Amino acid sequence: MDLGQTARLKPVLAAVKAMIADEIAPLDAEFLSQVDIGDRWQFTPRQSEILEGLKTKARDRGLWNFWDTFGDGPSLNTVEYAYLAEEMGKSHLAAEVFNCNAPDTGNMEVFARYGTAAMKDRWLKPLMAGDIRSAYLMTEPDVASSDATNIAMTCVRDGDDYVLNGQKWWATGAGDPRCAVHIVMVRSNDEAPKHQRHSMIVVPADTPGIVKLRAMEVYGHDDAPHGHMHFRYDNVRVPAENLLLGIGRGFEIAQGRLGPGRIHHCMRAIGQAEKALALMCERSVSRAAFGKPLAELGENYDLIATARMEIEQARLLCLKAAWMMDQRDKRAAAPWISQIKVVAPAVALKITDMAVQMFGAAGVSQDTPLARQWTHLRTLRLADGPDAVHRRQVARAELAAYGTGQKIS
Amino acid sequence: MDLGQTARLKPVLAAVKAMIADEIAPLDAEFLSQVDIGDRWQFTPRQSEILEGLKTKARDRGLWNFWDTFGDGPSLNTVEYAYLAEEMGKSHLAAEVFNCNAPDTGNMEVFARYGTAAMKDRWLKPLMAGDIRSAYLMTEPDVASSDATNIAMTCVRDGDDYVLNGQKWWATGAGDPRCAVHIVMVRSNDEAPKHQRHSMIVVPADTPGIVKLRAMEVYGHDDAPHGHMHFRYDNVRVPAENLLLGIGRGFEIAQGRLGPGRIHHCMRAIGQAEKALALMCERSVSRAAFGKPLAELGENYDLIATARMEIEQARLLCLKAAWMMDQRDKRAAAPWISQIKVVAPAVALKITDMAVQMFGAAGVSQDTPLARQWTHLRTLRLADGPDAVHRRQVARAELAAYGTGQKIS
Amino acid sequence: MDLGQTARLKPVLAAVKAMIADEIAPLDAEFLSQVDIGDRWQFTPRQSEILEGLKTKARDRGLWNFWDTFGDGPSLNTVEYAYLAEEMGKSHLAAEVFNCNAPDTGNMEVFARYGTAAMKDRWLKPLMAGDIRSAYLMTEPDVASSDATNIAMTCVRDGDDYVLNGQKWWATGAGDPRCAVHIVMVRSNDEAPKHQRHSMIVVPADTPGIVKLRAMEVYGHDDAPHGHMHFRYDNVRVPAENLLLGIGRGFEIAQGRLGPGRIHHCMRAIGQAEKALALMCERSVSRAAFGKPLAELGENYDLIATARMEIEQARLLCLKAAWMMDQRDKRAAAPWISQIKVVAPAVALKITDMAVQMFGAAGVSQDTPLARQWTHLRTLRLADGPDAVHRRQVARAELAAYGTGQKIS
Amino acid sequence: MDLGQTARLKPVLAAVKAMIADEIAPLDAEFLSQVDIGDRWQFTPRQSEILEGLKTKARDRGLWNFWDTFGDGPSLNTVEYAYLAEEMGKSHLAAEVFNCNAPDTGNMEVFARYGTAAMKDRWLKPLMAGDIRSAYLMTEPDVASSDATNIAMTCVRDGDDYVLNGQKWWATGAGDPRCAVHIVMVRSNDEAPKHQRHSMIVVPADTPGIVKLRAMEVYGHDDAPHGHMHFRYDNVRVPAENLLLGIGRGFEIAQGRLGPGRIHHCMRAIGQAEKALALMCERSVSRAAFGKPLAELGENYDLIATARMEIEQARLLCLKAAWMMDQRDKRAAAPWISQIKVVAPAVALKITDMAVQMFGAAGVSQDTPLARQWTHLRTLRLADGPDAVHRRQVARAELAAYGTGQKIS
Repeated sequence: MDLGQTARLKPVLAAVKAMIADEIAPLDAEFLSQVDIGDRWQFTPRQSEILEGLKTKARDRGLWNFWDTFGDGPSLNTVEYAYLAEEMGKSHLAAEVFNCNAPDTGNMEVFARYGTAAMKDRWLKPLMAGDIRSAYLMTEPDVASSDATNIAMTCVRDGDDYVLNGQKWWATGAGDPRCAVHIVMVRSNDEAPKHQRHSMIVVPADTPGIVKLRAMEVYGHDDAPHGHMHFRYDNVRVPAENLLLGIGRGFEIAQGRLGPGRIHHCMRAIGQAEKALALMCERSVSRAAFGKPLAELGENYDLIATARMEIEQARLLCLKAAWMMDQRDKRAAAPWISQIKVVAPAVALKITDMAVQMFGAAGVSQDTPLARQWTHLRTLRLADGPDAVHRRQVARAELAAYGTGQKIS
Repeated sequence: MDLGQTARLKPVLAAVKAMIADEIAPLDAEFLSQVDIGDRWQFTPRQSEILEGLKTKARDRGLWNFWDTFGDGPSLNTVEYAYLAEEMGKSHLAAEVFNCNAPDTGNMEVFARYGTAAMKDRWLKPLMAGDIRSAYLMTEPDVASSDATNIAMTCVRDGDDYVLNGQKWWATGAGDPRCAVHIVMVRSNDEAPKHQRHSMIVVPADTPGIVKLRAMEVYGHDDAPHGHMHFRYDNVRVPAENLLLGIGRGFEIAQGRLGPGRIHHCMRAIGQAEKALALMCERSVSRAAFGKPLAELGENYDLIATARMEIEQARLLCLKAAWMMDQRDKRAAAPWISQIKVVAPAVALKITDMAVQMFGAAGVSQDTPLARQWTHLRTLRLADGPDAVHRRQVARAELAAYGTGQKIS
Repeated sequence: MDLGQTARLKPVLAAVKAMIADEIAPLDAEFLSQVDIGDRWQFTPRQSEILEGLKTKARDRGLWNFWDTFGDGPSLNTVEYAYLAEEMGKSHLAAEVFNCNAPDTGNMEVFARYGTAAMKDRWLKPLMAGDIRSAYLMTEPDVASSDATNIAMTCVRDGDDYVLNGQKWWATGAGDPRCAVHIVMVRSNDEAPKHQRHSMIVVPADTPGIVKLRAMEVYGHDDAPHGHMHFRYDNVRVPAENLLLGIGRGFEIAQGRLGPGRIHHCMRAIGQAEKALALMCERSVSRAAFGKPLAELGENYDLIATARMEIEQARLLCLKAAWMMDQRDKRAAAPWISQIKVVAPAVALKITDMAVQMFGAAGVSQDTPLARQWTHLRTLRLADGPDAVHRRQVARAELAAYGTGQKIS
Repeated sequence: MDLGQTARLKPVLAAVKAMIADEIAPLDAEFLSQVDIGDRWQFTPRQSEILEGLKTKARDRGLWNFWDTFGDGPSLNTVEYAYLAEEMGKSHLAAEVFNCNAPDTGNMEVFARYGTAAMKDRWLKPLMAGDIRSAYLMTEPDVASSDATNIAMTCVRDGDDYVLNGQKWWATGAGDPRCAVHIVMVRSNDEAPKHQRHSMIVVPADTPGIVKLRAMEVYGHDDAPHGHMHFRYDNVRVPAENLLLGIGRGFEIAQGRLGPGRIHHCMRAIGQAEKALALMCERSVSRAAFGKPLAELGENYDLIATARMEIEQARLLCLKAAWMMDQRDKRAAAPWISQIKVVAPAVALKITDMAVQMFGAAGVSQDTPLARQWTHLRTLRLADGPDAVHRRQVARAELAAYGTGQKIS
């Protein structure tokens, strides 16, 4: 069980680290400051210049499409990829620069595994090239989507088409002008058993009937131009061949899709936790109160130690989950994914909040990246399943060994 | 030790509750939505109409200036006032409607206790009438202000004037166009013992040399038009008689000022905790997942019970601290104030975050008041002294009984 | 809502405090050390001398039978009594010395409220005189007694008698040679609705068929000669008039009985928390490491402050619950009792454990009372209902206001 | 960084697991029940038979002296050994059966690394053969030994001898009749710099002047016949050649000694955590209340999931620390050892306590191994350095990267 950095990873990791530190992170603030210029939902010329310039550099250096699902890129396994994701967590732009952004990586995986040749040509290629972006429409406002069997958007066969009706929200990235395609979870066949009633279907973003109701806000922020969009689908019609894998196989695809994406999310969270701890340490040795550096006051040593211990544990758990995925037994890997999905965001949130407190009023302000980081991290306790659902999965897996475990609801 | 609602409080409390529920809270959203219209730092006509209309009603009903420092208003003691503050915490506008807003109440207290007759005439009267607003300038960007002896803004005598130079930030309310006066903590006499080097001085907000550098943001929000302003004072000159109480007596005033204000803050926090719990309960019985209302899933009963138990304890502690204040022994009351300053915001934050989680993605969004409430509450762990400083005070008071306690740094 | 110390309480409290500090606590260690002499389940002459001597003094001074249920003693209400219970928590012997021991006080209450004249004469009188002791048999080994409807000991009418069969364990105090009577919860009428199937019945401790199986241990301690006994009842026969209040009314009596007893338990726990904090403070100023008193190292200030804040909150909550009981609305008081039953033991355990850690290895040893205190306190999270059951009650009470609350299982 | 089970480990681990499950654990209860027969500090014939019988079997099977410091045994590295230690944690007798008991393994390491040929012959050989046992005398009653520079037992040269005076307590295993030798930390040369004033010296257990004052108790238990002894050394005289490595090099030896021992302790704690979780799961599916198995009530799923997540993280952290040790850079490994020393006992205690609560009153009793396990685990938060000291080390290591870190006291 090698959880370390392999020989082939090391040069890639070094290159990614260096590019983030030297070229990407220094442009984060300028990129973000341009959001308020003109139409929030369009890129300014300078934003395009920054982003496309960095992407071109990354692509030219082969720091692009890292995972091993396709023949393209350095072809790393999940453990190796995890180390890169951690680094990307430290910069706002990095994940996109390396074409490793959510939800695109997950969507690329869906097209690669379950897509037809035509879909691969139309959607996977430009996604892998970084030319378009994509959205994943799962959650709905009117039901508790934590129990995905509640999902209610209808998908009715009509001749050679499917017709979709309903609402979806929290479609992350769907505000982006480059977002060209939606992958949508729909309720297609109510007569089937509970976990075979839903399908996954591909919807071009410009299909008539798609109504952008509003941008959802995260602690008051719309994250434009990326955005978390709230849509209404009014008789949205797509050809029947857009249905992925087969009728009623939505859950099968959803399960396959979420594993690696959750690991990326979690490792980026670990990266943010490291960043918060670094900021906290710097502050603690450079500010003084009551005649001492903050580090020497009260529980600050204990907090720093606690942060370090929790980060190390969370990282090792993520790496173990990644290693489980690399063993290619999804059933065995699933509870590990659930574990990190609970642990990593919680640790990153806790340490970011500790850092806020160490900074005093500056911590909640625009003068550190901590406040923005916290609000972003907070959504991870809900996205891709709230904590409670993942703890439930972990418990069920645990109790399965005790005979009656499986029968427990 | 009567911590209950007295007979004279009950009708006042009922009137305040009813006015908040029926007249104030229903206008909160509209008022807030107007911030983005036109100049963020000016009130729109509709905002003025809402606010002044409500204030007139409150004043007409005698629901105005409740505390007993002055002869005006219902003259309640701190315990009684605390119950009102809890209710005001449940609405964005309520505290101002009843002329009980921070930092004005604290500033009124300063003028009432330490101000000259001229100051009372010029500043206290219009503050009590709700005609102007005020700011309190304490914290500075370049020093750890948690140790207030670090405060560095200079105040130098020059003829009949004092001349002030330095920076202040987090001047809450100083962005408000009605903010007419600053009460400012300055370093006036370095030769004195550590706690007698600072003074408090009154500075009209339109004094030349006051430069508004920027609005500080709280998790990305500027709270316009109220605002948390960052000022530079460039040779700001005020008459010597503006100095409050006497040279080097800044700490004495600061201590006196902060007690009741902290209780109000804490009880408003309790009110917000109650509001979050109520929202959490409503959600838990009205949404279903896995075939059950959320309330019946996993730890949700335990969370609701925990919230109830923590609120009750925090409220009782606040009431006890208020009662200690009413005994008029500041030295004895001080550690109680420190206790609630740590406890109440922590409890309110925890329960608000629990409620966010119960709501799922809606919890972090604009569809509930929880996200806004959380970011606001988060500043309370820093404002008026960070948690660590208050825990330090509580521990020092505890150890004083053990002989060497006082000697411990 | 007066939660303070009343004028009539103050002299009683002072006398109790003084007697504990000067006369009772100094004999605790000697009394306990005699347990290992001779038969663990009999008192040594010296033990009897210590205990009876102190009881005589207490009785002579009127410090005896404090509550107001009977005409005897100082007749204090629950709030007042709570302050005394806190003091008694600080000494091993104190509660018994003042005839305020569990389970006797609860049992006396049962006889006083629900007993016949004959029972009062035979059992209540000697209990109030401190001449005999009693046990309360509720919990059973074979069922989850946290759900008391599971209780299974049978009670079958046979002519003028009832005949009891089954097992009971954790009969606290039943090992005491002076224990003369059991009050026993039995399943008497299965045909009735779930909460009317059980009865409470009085069984003389020497009734044939009562088999003492063993003493239950608490973290390896049998608490001889008091003990927590495991009994088998083999055809234990008592006259029908021993049944209390009426057939199927066991739950009604159990509810009435447990309220004040829980408050006493909780306030004694608060007393133990105060004792642990005092020991922790003493240690922190009298030991040095790394060149400083322990108090000044790391998070120790924060721990001391946290302990103080949690104690104050827990005490106020207990006093509020006591006040609710004094309002004589059991339904309204019940969730308050549940709240303190969760809060007080948890706080006392946490602070005792903190103190253990401050003492280093001495903390777990026989050199401080902390280890013994911890193991005793640990049982309180289980006795009279485990935490989970009480949190469930609190949550149900909370949700009752939300319409569907009552229907939730 | 391979943290998995290697090919060479797997058969050894399987053999150890099987022997514990089939042959050792079934005898634990009988062995322990014999402690109360006759002299608590001597083995009964049956105890000797059990223990020596199992040791012989283990030795015959090559399941003996596993680590790679010596040429003897399967020669495993620390990561591999850690997996074995975890299994041994699940049985009272196992560690001794495989000759892997504390403090013997640490003492063997001291003799192997720093001992003279004569010492190896006299002490190391019989220790490796399991013929004698040993003690490690560090902690003293009169000083805060968490700061080991406080250690005060004097060691004065007198001709060819050293003469020792002072007290030592918590000498674990020194009550065992087979304990033949003490390794003792003494203050030998006060004139040297702070960390070079102490030496380590070998003292035969039967040296005149060694006075056994008493057995220290852990939550009331003396752990006879193993014991945690409190000694007075009255002019204890040993030849000068008994001094290990050189005068003033006590800290150097102590550091070397403690690393692997702490990993063993921590991995045994993980084993105990697993055992507690297994018991908790079994109970949760086999008891019912309110019409459901306990597992389905309230937060029980969440607790089980939390236990699983904390165990996995703690185990991975221990394995990483073990791996760091195997890299043979002590300076780099040290903060990892400190991390697990804080994390593993805390996790094991928390989960054991959760399991106690799941069992109800049975959890604190003699009917499960949980209560015994808890009291034993509780000492690990103090032994080999209290948590606070280890967190301090972790924080100092963290801050060293921030320039002034090293200067911080």
